[in-house]
Order: sequence, then structure tokens, then C-alpha cells
Amino acid sequence: MARKPEGTRPAKIPHVVVLRLPLYARALALLQANGQEVVSSAELGDMLRVTPAQIRKDLSYFGRFGKQGRGYNVTRLLERLRLILGLDREWRMALIGVGKLGRAILEYGGFAPQGFRVVHAFDLDAGAVGQTFGGLTVRPVSELEQVLSADPVDIGIVAVPAFAAQKVMDSLVRCGVRAILNYAPIPAHTPQGVELRQIDPVLALQSMTFHLKSLAPPAE
Amino acid sequence: MARKPEGTRPAKIPHVVVLRLPLYARALALLQANGQEVVSSAELGDMLRVTPAQIRKDLSYFGRFGKQGRGYNVTRLLERLRLILGLDREWRMALIGVGKLGRAILEYGGFAPQGFRVVHAFDLDAGAVGQTFGGLTVRPVSELEQVLSADPVDIGIVAVPAFAAQKVMDSLVRCGVRAILNYAPIPAHTPQGVELRQIDPVLALQSMTFHLKSLAPPAE
Repeated sequence: MARKPEGTRPAKIPHVVVLRLPLYARALALLQANGQEVVSSAELGDMLRVTPAQIRKDLSYFGRFGKQGRGYNVTRLLERLRLILGLDREWRMALIGVGKLGRAILEYGGFAPQGFRVVHAFDLDAGAVGQTFGGLTVRPVSELEQVLSADPVDIGIVAVPAFAAQKVMDSLVRCGVRAILNYAPIPAHTPQGVELRQIDPVLALQSMTFHLKSLAPPAE
Repeated sequence: MARKPEGTRPAKIPHVVVLRLPLYARALALLQANGQEVVSSAELGDMLRVTPAQIRKDLSYFGRFGKQGRGYNVTRLLERLRLILGLDREWRMALIGVGKLGRAILEYGGFAPQGFRVVHAFDLDAGAVGQTFGGLTVRPVSELEQVLSADPVDIGIVAVPAFAAQKVMDSLVRCGVRAILNYAPIPAHTPQGVELRQIDPVLALQSMTFHLKSLAPPAE
């Protein structure tokens, strides 16, 4: 659903390709950790349930990798993908909403090793403000624009209730944030040039029950 | 990435359409809550950043809705979509992994109102087993197959560490579970006919930094 910025890179890369690149990088990191030096597009495709042709086509947007019939050098391809995805640096994030979900996000061990660091935390609720989680003291959301003007972040994580989420996103955009990860269950909007991704387990469940309902007896 | 079951419905609905239907249902529920009776595909498209033509095409897989130039009856379309998605009933879920993330899932208030109820919780860790969260007592994962054979669930939620996730999913599949929501950051696999959705904030962040990196100065 997110609009993509135009003219920031030489060729226009399809959105679905950009979404697949992190999957490739993760699979290659697994192979590297296992000591594997070369991988074929068939093997990589099998790991990820993508066709080998799809992988070759996706990677072809970024130049030539590997040699026909010899497969890819795991370390070299992973390094290239990390550069392409911007994973060779640290990204600063602000978290807005430090309820149960926000706290789980702050304490989640999976962001930092991947270079994603929460450096500011904000909440609407006076009860949460001033508390410290994961080494960060929660500030009132009323100070968001002031704090981020003085000390900018790259990414905003929105974990506030649905009613407050769009307003928080608008504030983040005014602060120059160009990427937002939204956990609030709303049809969120950002202007052109601001990336938006939605984390929404209910939508994921509902797209599965479509398939389940024909297998199960109807409800009472 | 999930394979779709074949032959369980008359026409083959593209996967991307199934993923959009819950978004339509959510937007319609918002409109309904606001007392709006009729909506045009243009207005719905604007809410969701989808073209009106896309909406009309997606809905056309399921029959004729609305009349040319008159828009859709909000309540009627929402009811049809809820039937199509299987949202008119309760779905029973088992949660595996009751660490920080699992506890946030158990205490998340957004599942139950949508008909998704966690009825069993399991953990690998002896320290978590026997504890009670959200009214559920955590059982050892070694009892998973026994418990689910006696008292089946529709959906499995996997929130265990990466190293254990595929094994847990294989157990769920053996218990007849046909839909899995996986939070573990691995390239997970399920057999044909078992739906799989991945909730993965790191992948979402990495697909955004692709766009950010051309805006920011390179890291040291």
C-alpha cells in the first residue's frame, strides 16, 4: 500500500522485488552461518519457495551476480544485498506508544543485531511517561516534534491505539521521518516519498480464514 | 510465500486479492461505525490507496455488488465480505511460545473481538510451563500433539525462538492445523494446503531502508 519515492535510484525496482530482497539476505546469512560458500538459485528458491527464475530476475535489477551454472558466492551476494538494502549501517528509530505492545517491541532482541536501534520512546499516557524500559525513558508525545527536531531519527514505530495512530504518523512526517512501521490496525496514510509498512496479525489471520472456511463446518 | 489449497472453491482467487479482502472489510466496518450507508469504489479506494478499478475487479470474483454509479451498500457488502472471509464465526487458536512476545500476543485485545480466540498455550521452557497468562495455563510443548488431538484448533501461532520454529510448525501440521501465523524469523515451510503467514517487523524495516539509504549519508 505504501507509495514509493520516485527518482531516488537509477532504475525503478518493483515493490514486490524490494519486499523479497530481505528474504534473500536472511537465507544467505543462514547459509553463511552454516559455512556454505556457494548456492544455486534452485537451492535458494527451494529454501524460500520462490522459483529459481524469479530469484535470477529479481537480482538482475542490481547487476550480474554469479556465473551461469556455478551458482552464487554466498558471502559476496550477501554483502551486495546488505549494501543494496542499507543494512551496513545503524538506523535510528523512535517508538511511539509504550503499552504492552510497545514494551514488547522495546525489549525485542531481534532489532539491534540487525542495526535497528530505538533511541526515543514516547507515550500519550501520563502514567507511562517517565518510566524506563530497555534503558529508554518514556517522554510525553507532546514533545515528539521538539525532540526529533533536535535529534532526528530515520524510522518511526507506531504502537499507539488506533484512534491516535494517524495523528502520530502525521507528526512523524512533519519531523522528516521517511519510514514508518505501523502496528495500529487502521488504513494508515503517508504522503508520497514516505515509506509505510503495516504489521497486522488480524489481517493475516483473516486472509487465512478465507481458505479455512471451506474446510470447516459453518458456525452456529 | 504460502501455498494455496486447490479445488476448495469454485474459481481460483489470486492470492493478492485474498490479502486485500480483509482491508476492504476493515474499511467498511469503519464506515459502518460512522453511520455511512453507501460508499463508492472511489471513496473506498481513497481510504485504502487502491484504485477504484482494482476494488471493482477484486470484488467481481465473488459476484455482483452494488449498482453502476450508485456505490455499494456498506452493511450489505461488509456482511458478504465477512461471510467470504469466514469472519462470521469463532476460530480457535493454539499459541506456542509464551516468552515476552507470546505474552504480548496472549494479552493483545485485538484478536478476540475479531473472533480469534487462543484456547491453548504451550512453551518449551520448564520455567514458563504451569504459569497462567490471560486465563490460560501454559503446557509443555511435548504435550502439543496429545492436547490438540483431543481438542483441535484451527490456527497455530508460533512465537518460539527461530531454532525451534520449523519443528513446532511440523507438529502443528501433524495435528491437522491448516493455518499458521509465524512470528519466528526463519524461512518457514508448510505443505501444500496449509496456509502460512509471517509476521516479521525486521523484514518490513529492511524493505524500507532500501528506500532510505539513498537519502542518508553512508555509515562510517
